[in-house]
Amino acid sequence: MPIYVVGAGPGDPKLLTLRAVELLSKADVVAYGDLVPEEIVKLYARGAAVVKIGHRREEHDAAVAALIEEAKRGKTVVVLKNGDPTIFGRGIQICKEAERRGVECEIVPGVSAFMAAAALYKIELTNGTTLRHITLLSYPHVDAQTLKNAADTLVIHMMGDHLSELVKMLQDLPNVEIYACYAITQGGKCEKTEIGKLEEYRGKKPLLIIVRKVPPAPSLNSGASCGI
Amino acid sequence: MPIYVVGAGPGDPKLLTLRAVELLSKADVVAYGDLVPEEIVKLYARGAAVVKIGHRREEHDAAVAALIEEAKRGKTVVVLKNGDPTIFGRGIQICKEAERRGVECEIVPGVSAFMAAAALYKIELTNGTTLRHITLLSYPHVDAQTLKNAADTLVIHMMGDHLSELVKMLQDLPNVEIYACYAITQGGKCEKTEIGKLEEYRGKKPLLIIVRKVPPAPSLNSGASCGI
Repeated sequence: MPIYVVGAGPGDPKLLTLRAVELLSKADVVAYGDLVPEEIVKLYARGAAVVKIGHRREEHDAAVAALIEEAKRGKTVVVLKNGDPTIFGRGIQICKEAERRGVECEIVPGVSAFMAAAALYKIELTNGTTLRHITLLSYPHVDAQTLKNAADTLVIHMMGDHLSELVKMLQDLPNVEIYACYAITQGGKCEKTEIGKLEEYRGKKPLLIIVRKVPPAPSLNSGASCGI
Repeated sequence: MPIYVVGAGPGDPKLLTLRAVELLSKADVVAYGDLVPEEIVKLYARGAAVVKIGHRREEHDAAVAALIEEAKRGKTVVVLKNGDPTIFGRGIQICKEAERRGVECEIVPGVSAFMAAAALYKIELTNGTTLRHITLLSYPHVDAQTLKNAADTLVIHMMGDHLSELVKMLQDLPNVEIYACYAITQGGKCEKTEIGKLEEYRGKKPLLIIVRKVPPAPSLNSGASCGI
Protein backbone atom coordinates (compact mmCIF):
# COMPACT_ATOMS: atom_id res chain seq x y z
CA MET A 1 0.00 0.00 0.00
CA PRO A 2 1.13 3.59 -0.42
CA ILE A 3 1.90 5.63 2.66
CA TYR A 4 -0.15 8.82 3.07
CA VAL A 5 1.17 12.05 4.54
CA VAL A 6 -1.93 14.02 5.40
CA GLY A 7 -2.50 17.61 6.53
CA ALA A 8 -4.59 17.64 9.71
CA GLY A 9 -5.33 21.36 9.45
CA PRO A 10 -5.05 23.85 12.30
CA GLY A 11 -6.86 21.76 14.94
CA ASP A 12 -10.62 22.14 14.43
CA PRO A 13 -11.86 18.70 13.27
CA LYS A 14 -14.15 20.42 10.76
CA LEU A 15 -11.16 21.94 9.00
CA LEU A 16 -9.86 18.61 7.74
CA THR A 17 -10.44 17.93 4.05
CA LEU A 18 -12.82 15.21 2.87
CA ARG A 19 -9.81 13.35 1.48
CA ALA A 20 -8.06 13.42 4.86
CA VAL A 21 -11.15 12.03 6.60
CA GLU A 22 -11.58 9.34 3.92
CA LEU A 23 -7.99 8.16 4.39
CA LEU A 24 -8.19 8.24 8.19
CA SER A 25 -11.37 6.16 8.13
CA LYS A 26 -9.61 3.33 6.32
CA ALA A 27 -6.23 3.62 8.02
CA ASP A 28 -4.72 0.62 9.78
CA VAL A 29 -2.05 2.78 11.39
CA VAL A 30 -2.14 6.50 12.15
CA ALA A 31 1.02 8.28 13.23
CA TYR A 32 1.11 11.85 14.55
CA GLY A 33 3.14 14.29 16.57
CA ASP A 34 2.13 16.29 19.63
CA LEU A 35 0.79 19.24 17.64
CA VAL A 36 -2.09 17.18 16.19
CA PRO A 37 -5.06 17.04 18.61
CA GLU A 38 -5.93 13.50 19.78
CA GLU A 39 -9.58 14.39 19.16
CA ILE A 40 -9.01 14.27 15.40
CA VAL A 41 -7.57 10.77 15.56
CA LYS A 42 -10.34 9.57 17.89
CA LEU A 43 -13.07 11.01 15.68
CA TYR A 44 -11.90 9.90 12.28
CA ALA A 45 -9.53 6.95 12.75
CA ARG A 46 -11.38 4.84 15.31
CA GLY A 47 -10.15 1.49 14.06
CA ALA A 48 -6.50 2.40 13.62
CA ALA A 49 -3.45 1.56 15.67
CA VAL A 50 -1.90 4.77 16.90
CA VAL A 51 1.79 5.72 16.83
CA LYS A 52 3.12 8.93 18.41
CA ILE A 53 6.03 10.53 16.58
CA GLY A 54 8.63 12.58 18.43
CA HIS A 55 10.11 15.80 17.12
CA ARG A 56 13.75 14.91 17.55
CA ARG A 57 15.43 13.93 14.34
CA GLU A 58 16.43 10.39 15.34
CA GLU A 59 13.06 9.54 16.89
CA HIS A 60 11.25 10.96 13.87
CA ASP A 61 13.40 9.09 11.37
CA ALA A 62 13.14 5.78 13.26
CA ALA A 63 9.35 6.11 13.48
CA VAL A 64 9.11 6.91 9.77
CA ALA A 65 11.27 3.92 8.84
CA ALA A 66 8.99 1.63 10.87
CA LEU A 67 5.87 3.13 9.25
CA ILE A 68 7.27 2.60 5.78
CA GLU A 69 7.81 -1.06 6.69
CA GLU A 70 4.17 -1.33 7.79
CA ALA A 71 3.04 0.08 4.44
CA LYS A 72 5.32 -2.39 2.67
CA ARG A 73 3.55 -5.20 4.56
CA GLY A 74 0.23 -4.01 3.10
CA LYS A 75 -1.05 -1.80 5.89
CA THR A 76 -2.77 1.51 5.15
CA VAL A 77 -0.56 4.00 6.95
CA VAL A 78 -1.44 7.67 7.49
CA VAL A 79 1.10 10.12 8.86
CA LEU A 80 -0.89 13.10 10.16
CA LYS A 81 0.90 16.46 10.13
CA ASN A 82 -0.58 19.54 11.75
CA GLY A 83 -1.49 22.26 9.26
CA ASP A 84 -0.21 21.55 5.78
CA PRO A 85 2.57 18.98 5.29
CA THR A 86 4.51 21.08 2.75
CA ILE A 87 4.80 24.23 4.91
CA PHE A 88 7.71 23.68 7.27
CA GLY A 89 6.67 20.06 7.64
CA ARG A 90 8.83 17.13 6.69
CA GLY A 91 6.09 15.70 4.49
CA ILE A 92 8.01 15.62 1.26
CA GLN A 93 11.09 14.18 2.98
CA ILE A 94 8.95 11.34 4.34
CA CYS A 95 7.62 10.65 0.84
CA LYS A 96 11.07 10.69 -0.70
CA GLU A 97 12.32 8.25 1.92
CA ALA A 98 9.31 5.96 1.28
CA GLU A 99 9.88 6.05 -2.47
CA ARG A 100 13.58 5.32 -1.96
CA ARG A 101 12.46 2.18 -0.13
CA GLY A 102 10.06 1.20 -2.89
CA VAL A 103 6.82 2.39 -1.26
CA GLU A 104 4.51 4.84 -3.05
CA CYS A 105 3.59 7.97 -1.18
CA GLU A 106 0.78 10.52 -1.45
CA ILE A 107 0.66 13.92 0.23
CA VAL A 108 -2.74 15.41 1.04
CA PRO A 109 -2.55 19.17 1.55
CA GLY A 110 -4.28 20.78 4.53
CA VAL A 111 -5.32 24.17 5.89
CA SER A 112 -2.31 25.89 7.43
CA ALA A 113 -2.70 27.54 10.84
CA PHE A 114 -1.78 30.99 9.55
CA MET A 115 -4.73 30.91 7.15
CA ALA A 116 -7.07 29.91 9.94
CA ALA A 117 -5.66 32.73 12.10
CA ALA A 118 -6.22 35.28 9.32
CA ALA A 119 -9.73 33.94 8.67
CA LEU A 120 -10.90 33.75 12.27
CA TYR A 121 -9.47 37.08 13.36
CA LYS A 122 -9.94 38.83 10.01
CA ILE A 123 -6.34 39.89 9.76
CA GLU A 124 -5.64 41.07 6.22
CA LEU A 125 -2.39 39.45 5.13
CA THR A 126 -2.42 41.49 1.93
CA ASN A 127 -4.62 44.35 0.80
CA GLY A 128 -3.34 44.98 -2.72
CA THR A 129 -1.86 48.38 -1.82
CA THR A 130 0.35 48.77 1.25
CA LEU A 131 0.50 45.05 1.99
CA ARG A 132 1.43 43.29 -1.22
CA HIS A 133 3.12 40.03 -0.26
CA ILE A 134 3.56 37.53 2.53
CA THR A 135 6.69 35.72 3.70
CA LEU A 136 6.35 32.50 5.67
CA LEU A 137 9.27 31.96 8.02
CA SER A 138 10.08 29.47 10.72
CA TYR A 139 12.18 30.30 13.73
CA PRO A 140 15.19 29.69 13.97
CA HIS A 141 15.54 30.20 10.19
CA VAL A 142 15.11 33.91 10.67
CA ASP A 143 17.60 36.77 10.59
CA ALA A 144 17.27 40.54 10.88
CA GLN A 145 18.06 41.19 7.21
CA THR A 146 15.42 38.72 6.00
CA LEU A 147 12.81 40.18 8.33
CA LYS A 148 13.57 43.62 6.93
CA ASN A 149 13.55 42.70 3.24
CA ALA A 150 11.28 39.71 3.01
CA ALA A 151 7.78 41.06 2.42
CA ASP A 152 5.13 43.46 3.64
CA THR A 153 3.61 40.78 5.87
CA LEU A 154 5.64 38.22 7.79
CA VAL A 155 4.26 35.04 9.30
CA ILE A 156 6.77 33.55 11.70
CA HIS A 157 6.18 29.98 12.83
CA MET A 158 7.93 29.68 16.18
CA MET A 159 9.76 26.42 16.68
CA GLY A 160 11.03 26.48 20.23
CA ASP A 161 10.93 29.29 22.70
CA HIS A 162 13.53 31.80 21.59
CA LEU A 163 11.25 34.78 21.65
CA SER A 164 13.83 37.12 23.14
CA GLU A 165 16.09 36.70 20.08
CA LEU A 166 13.18 37.36 17.73
CA VAL A 167 12.19 40.45 19.70
CA LYS A 168 15.68 41.91 19.22
CA MET A 169 15.42 41.44 15.46
CA LEU A 170 11.90 42.85 15.21
CA GLN A 171 12.92 46.02 17.04
CA ASP A 172 14.70 47.22 13.89
CA LEU A 173 11.48 47.25 11.86
CA PRO A 174 9.67 50.59 11.80
CA ASN A 175 5.86 50.83 11.90
CA VAL A 176 4.70 47.31 12.42
CA GLU A 177 1.48 45.77 13.67
CA ILE A 178 2.08 42.54 15.58
CA TYR A 179 -0.31 39.69 16.27
CA ALA A 180 0.52 36.69 18.43
CA CYS A 181 -1.60 33.66 17.51
CA TYR A 182 -1.43 30.40 19.41
CA ALA A 183 -3.30 27.11 19.34
CA ILE A 184 -5.64 28.55 16.70
CA THR A 185 -8.98 26.65 16.51
CA GLN A 186 -7.90 24.66 19.59
CA GLY A 187 -8.94 27.07 22.31
CA GLY A 188 -6.16 29.56 21.67
CA LYS A 189 -6.43 32.95 20.04
CA CYS A 190 -4.83 35.78 18.07
CA GLU A 191 -4.08 38.97 19.94
CA LYS A 192 -2.82 42.28 18.68
CA THR A 193 0.22 42.98 20.77
CA GLU A 194 3.51 44.89 20.86
CA ILE A 195 7.06 43.79 20.27
CA GLY A 196 7.87 44.44 23.92
CA LYS A 197 5.11 42.10 25.08
CA LEU A 198 5.86 39.16 22.82
CA GLU A 199 7.76 37.31 25.49
CA GLU A 200 4.50 36.87 27.38
CA TYR A 201 3.62 34.20 24.82
CA ARG A 202 6.52 31.98 25.80
CA GLY A 203 5.34 28.38 26.14
CA LYS A 204 2.17 28.80 24.06
CA LYS A 205 2.10 26.45 21.10
CA PRO A 206 1.82 26.21 18.25
CA LEU A 207 2.72 29.92 18.18
CA LEU A 208 2.60 32.15 15.11
CA ILE A 209 3.74 35.76 15.03
CA ILE A 210 2.13 37.83 12.27
CA VAL A 211 3.92 41.09 11.47
CA ARG A 212 2.28 43.64 9.18
CA LYS A 213 4.58 46.41 8.01
CA VAL A 214 2.06 49.21 7.91
CA PRO A 215 2.99 52.62 6.60
CA PRO A 216 2.75 55.42 9.17
CA ALA A 217 -0.67 57.09 9.23
CA PRO A 218 -0.56 60.50 7.52
CA SER A 219 -0.27 63.25 10.09
CA LEU A 220 -3.39 65.36 10.41
CA ASN A 221 -1.23 68.40 11.10
CA SER A 222 0.91 67.92 8.03
CA GLY A 223 1.30 71.15 6.09
CA ALA A 224 1.37 69.34 2.76
CA SER A 225 -1.93 68.80 0.99
CA CYS A 226 -2.52 65.16 0.16
CA GLY A 227 -5.60 65.63 -1.96
CA ILE A 228 -7.92 63.59 0.26
CA MET B 1 -28.12 35.09 8.90
CA PRO B 2 -24.37 35.57 8.72
CA ILE B 3 -22.70 35.56 5.32
CA TYR B 4 -20.01 32.90 4.84
CA VAL B 5 -16.86 33.41 2.79
CA VAL B 6 -15.59 29.91 2.16
CA GLY B 7 -12.35 28.54 0.69
CA ALA B 8 -13.16 26.10 -2.12
CA GLY B 9 -9.62 24.71 -2.21
CA PRO B 10 -7.57 24.17 -5.37
CA GLY B 11 -10.31 22.47 -7.43
CA ASP B 12 -10.50 18.79 -6.41
CA PRO B 13 -13.88 18.38 -4.65
CA LYS B 14 -12.22 16.13 -2.06
CA LEU B 15 -9.96 18.98 -0.97
CA LEU B 16 -12.80 21.01 0.50
CA THR B 17 -13.01 21.05 4.27
CA LEU B 18 -15.89 19.39 6.12
CA ARG B 19 -16.97 22.85 7.28
CA ALA B 20 -17.12 24.10 3.69
CA VAL B 21 -19.26 21.14 2.61
CA GLU B 22 -21.55 21.57 5.64
CA LEU B 23 -22.16 25.23 4.79
CA LEU B 24 -22.68 24.55 1.08
CA SER B 25 -25.24 21.84 1.88
CA LYS B 26 -27.44 24.32 3.74
CA ALA B 27 -26.84 27.34 1.54
CA ASP B 28 -29.77 29.15 -0.05
CA VAL B 29 -27.47 31.16 -2.30
CA VAL B 30 -23.96 30.28 -3.50
CA ALA B 31 -21.85 32.89 -5.25
CA TYR B 32 -18.56 32.15 -7.01
CA GLY B 33 -16.14 33.42 -9.60
CA ASP B 34 -14.82 31.66 -12.69
CA LEU B 35 -11.87 30.06 -10.90
CA VAL B 36 -14.15 27.82 -8.80
CA PRO B 37 -15.15 24.65 -10.71
CA GLU B 38 -18.90 24.33 -11.28
CA GLU B 39 -18.57 20.68 -10.24
CA ILE B 40 -18.02 21.72 -6.62
CA VAL B 41 -21.22 23.75 -6.55
CA LYS B 42 -23.21 20.99 -8.28
CA LEU B 43 -21.91 18.35 -5.88
CA TYR B 44 -22.30 20.11 -2.58
CA ALA B 45 -24.85 22.90 -3.03
CA ARG B 46 -27.61 21.18 -4.99
CA GLY B 47 -30.46 23.17 -3.54
CA ALA B 48 -28.91 26.61 -3.77
CA ALA B 49 -29.52 29.49 -6.13
CA VAL B 50 -26.32 30.25 -7.99
CA VAL B 51 -24.75 33.66 -8.59
CA LYS B 52 -21.65 34.16 -10.72
CA ILE B 53 -19.31 36.92 -9.59
CA GLY B 54 -17.15 38.85 -12.04
CA HIS B 55 -13.56 39.85 -11.37
CA ARG B 56 -13.89 43.51 -12.22
CA ARG B 57 -14.08 45.72 -9.19
CA GLU B 58 -17.52 47.24 -9.89
CA GLU B 59 -19.15 43.92 -10.79
CA HIS B 60 -17.61 42.26 -7.74
CA ASP B 61 -18.71 45.01 -5.37
CA ALA B 62 -22.25 45.14 -6.77
CA ALA B 63 -22.60 41.36 -6.46
CA VAL B 64 -21.29 41.44 -2.89
CA ALA B 65 -23.72 44.23 -1.92
CA ALA B 66 -26.64 42.17 -3.28
CA LEU B 67 -25.44 39.06 -1.42
CA ILE B 68 -25.22 40.96 1.84
CA GLU B 69 -28.83 42.06 1.33
CA GLU B 70 -29.87 38.42 0.82
CA ALA B 71 -28.18 37.47 4.10
CA LYS B 72 -29.94 40.36 5.81
CA ARG B 73 -33.25 38.94 4.57
CA GLY B 74 -32.45 35.67 6.36
CA LYS B 75 -30.94 33.66 3.53
CA THR B 76 -27.89 31.46 4.10
CA VAL B 77 -25.35 32.93 1.69
CA VAL B 78 -22.01 31.32 0.84
CA VAL B 79 -19.39 33.15 -1.21
CA LEU B 80 -17.01 30.50 -2.53
CA LYS B 81 -13.43 31.61 -3.19
CA ASN B 82 -10.93 29.41 -4.96
CA GLY B 83 -8.06 28.31 -2.72
CA ASP B 84 -8.02 30.11 0.60
CA PRO B 85 -9.97 33.37 0.99
CA THR B 86 -7.22 35.18 2.91
CA ILE B 87 -4.43 34.60 0.36
CA PHE B 88 -4.83 37.26 -2.33
CA GLY B 89 -8.57 36.87 -2.09
CA ARG B 90 -10.94 39.63 -1.11
CA GLY B 91 -12.46 37.50 1.64
CA ILE B 92 -11.73 39.80 4.54
CA GLN B 93 -12.87 42.86 2.57
CA ILE B 94 -16.21 41.14 1.92
CA CYS B 95 -16.59 40.41 5.63
CA LYS B 96 -15.73 43.96 6.63
CA GLU B 97 -18.29 45.29 4.16
CA ALA B 98 -20.92 42.88 5.53
CA GLU B 99 -20.19 43.89 9.12
CA ARG B 100 -20.35 47.57 8.15
CA ARG B 101 -23.87 46.82 6.90
CA GLY B 102 -24.82 45.01 10.11
CA VAL B 103 -24.45 41.44 8.84
CA GLU B 104 -22.19 38.96 10.63
CA CYS B 105 -19.57 37.24 8.54
CA GLU B 106 -17.52 34.06 8.92
CA ILE B 107 -14.48 33.10 6.86
CA VAL B 108 -13.72 29.41 6.39
CA PRO B 109 -10.09 28.82 5.38
CA GLY B 110 -9.26 26.45 2.53
CA VAL B 111 -6.35 24.65 0.93
CA SER B 112 -4.39 27.05 -1.25
CA ALA B 113 -3.36 25.94 -4.74
CA PHE B 114 0.35 26.35 -4.04
CA MET B 115 0.14 23.79 -1.24
CA ALA B 116 -1.66 21.35 -3.51
CA ALA B 117 1.01 21.92 -6.18
CA ALA B 118 3.82 21.25 -3.69
CA ALA B 119 2.00 18.17 -2.36
CA LEU B 120 1.10 16.61 -5.69
CA TYR B 121 4.40 17.24 -7.39
CA LYS B 122 6.53 16.86 -4.24
CA ILE B 123 8.21 20.21 -4.68
CA GLU B 124 10.01 21.10 -1.45
CA LEU B 125 9.16 24.71 -0.67
CA THR B 126 11.61 24.70 2.22
CA ASN B 127 14.19 22.15 3.31
CA GLY B 128 15.56 23.72 6.49
CA THR B 129 18.97 24.39 4.96
CA THR B 130 19.27 26.09 1.58
CA LEU B 131 15.57 26.86 1.29
CA ARG B 132 14.48 28.49 4.53
CA HIS B 133 11.46 30.63 3.75
CA ILE B 134 8.67 31.20 1.24
CA THR B 135 7.26 34.42 -0.15
CA LEU B 136 3.78 34.47 -1.64
CA LEU B 137 3.39 37.12 -4.31
CA SER B 138 0.71 38.04 -6.77
CA TYR B 139 1.42 39.55 -10.15
CA PRO B 140 1.30 42.55 -10.76
CA HIS B 141 2.41 43.30 -7.16
CA VAL B 142 5.88 42.11 -8.04
CA ASP B 143 9.11 44.01 -8.69
CA ALA B 144 12.68 42.94 -9.38
CA GLN B 145 13.99 44.04 -5.98
CA THR B 146 11.32 42.08 -4.09
CA LEU B 147 11.96 38.97 -6.18
CA LYS B 148 15.64 39.24 -5.34
CA ASN B 149 15.30 39.86 -1.60
CA ALA B 150 12.03 38.25 -0.66
CA ALA B 151 12.85 34.66 0.25
CA ASP B 152 14.56 31.47 -0.84
CA THR B 153 11.35 30.21 -2.45
CA LEU B 154 8.91 32.43 -4.31
CA VAL B 155 5.35 31.49 -5.19
CA ILE B 156 3.97 33.93 -7.75
CA HIS B 157 0.22 33.88 -8.32
CA MET B 158 -0.27 35.23 -11.83
CA MET B 159 -3.22 37.55 -12.20
CA GLY B 160 -3.49 38.33 -15.87
CA ASP B 161 -1.13 37.40 -18.63
CA HIS B 162 1.92 39.61 -18.24
CA LEU B 163 4.43 36.81 -18.33
CA SER B 164 6.93 38.70 -20.48
CA GLU B 165 7.37 41.36 -17.78
CA LEU B 166 7.85 38.71 -15.10
CA VAL B 167 10.40 36.90 -17.28
CA LYS B 168 12.49 40.08 -17.50
CA MET B 169 12.55 40.39 -13.73
CA LEU B 170 13.37 36.74 -13.13
CA GLN B 171 16.36 36.90 -15.46
CA ASP B 172 18.30 38.79 -12.79
CA LEU B 173 18.10 35.90 -10.32
CA PRO B 174 21.05 33.53 -10.42
CA ASN B 175 20.61 29.75 -9.96
CA VAL B 176 16.90 29.23 -9.84
CA GLU B 177 14.66 26.23 -10.40
CA ILE B 178 11.35 27.19 -11.97
CA TYR B 179 8.06 25.30 -11.93
CA ALA B 180 4.96 26.40 -13.80
CA CYS B 181 1.79 25.02 -12.21
CA TYR B 182 -1.64 25.57 -13.70
CA ALA B 183 -5.16 24.37 -12.93
CA ILE B 184 -3.75 22.17 -10.16
CA THR B 185 -6.13 19.28 -9.25
CA GLN B 186 -8.35 20.34 -12.18
CA GLY B 187 -6.60 18.53 -15.00
CA GLY B 188 -3.59 20.85 -15.09
CA LYS B 189 -0.10 20.13 -13.87
CA CYS B 190 3.23 21.41 -12.53
CA GLU B 191 6.17 21.29 -14.87
CA LYS B 192 9.80 22.06 -14.24
CA THR B 193 10.68 24.63 -16.84
CA GLU B 194 13.08 27.47 -17.64
CA ILE B 195 12.70 31.21 -17.46
CA GLY B 196 12.93 31.40 -21.25
CA LYS B 197 10.02 29.00 -21.68
CA LEU B 198 7.61 30.58 -19.20
CA GLU B 199 5.72 32.45 -21.90
CA GLU B 200 4.46 29.12 -23.21
CA TYR B 201 2.10 29.08 -20.22
CA ARG B 202 0.28 32.21 -21.35
CA GLY B 203 -3.47 31.69 -21.05
CA LYS B 204 -3.29 28.78 -18.59
CA LYS B 205 -5.14 29.56 -15.40
CA PRO B 206 -5.00 29.67 -12.52
CA LEU B 207 -1.23 29.85 -13.05
CA LEU B 208 1.39 29.71 -10.30
CA ILE B 209 5.10 30.15 -10.84
CA ILE B 210 7.27 28.53 -8.15
CA VAL B 211 10.87 29.76 -8.03
CA ARG B 212 13.42 27.96 -5.85
CA LYS B 213 16.68 29.82 -5.40
CA VAL B 214 18.99 26.84 -5.27
CA PRO B 215 22.67 27.28 -4.55
CA PRO B 216 24.98 26.14 -7.37
CA ALA B 217 25.98 22.47 -7.07
CA PRO B 218 29.54 22.12 -5.79
CA SER B 219 31.94 21.47 -8.63
CA LEU B 220 33.34 17.94 -8.70
CA ASN B 221 36.62 19.28 -10.02
CA SER B 222 37.02 21.79 -7.25
CA GLY B 223 40.49 21.70 -5.72
CA ALA B 224 39.16 22.48 -2.26
CA SER B 225 38.25 19.60 0.01
CA CYS B 226 34.70 19.85 1.29
CA GLY B 227 34.89 17.01 3.78
CA ILE B 228 32.21 14.86 2.14
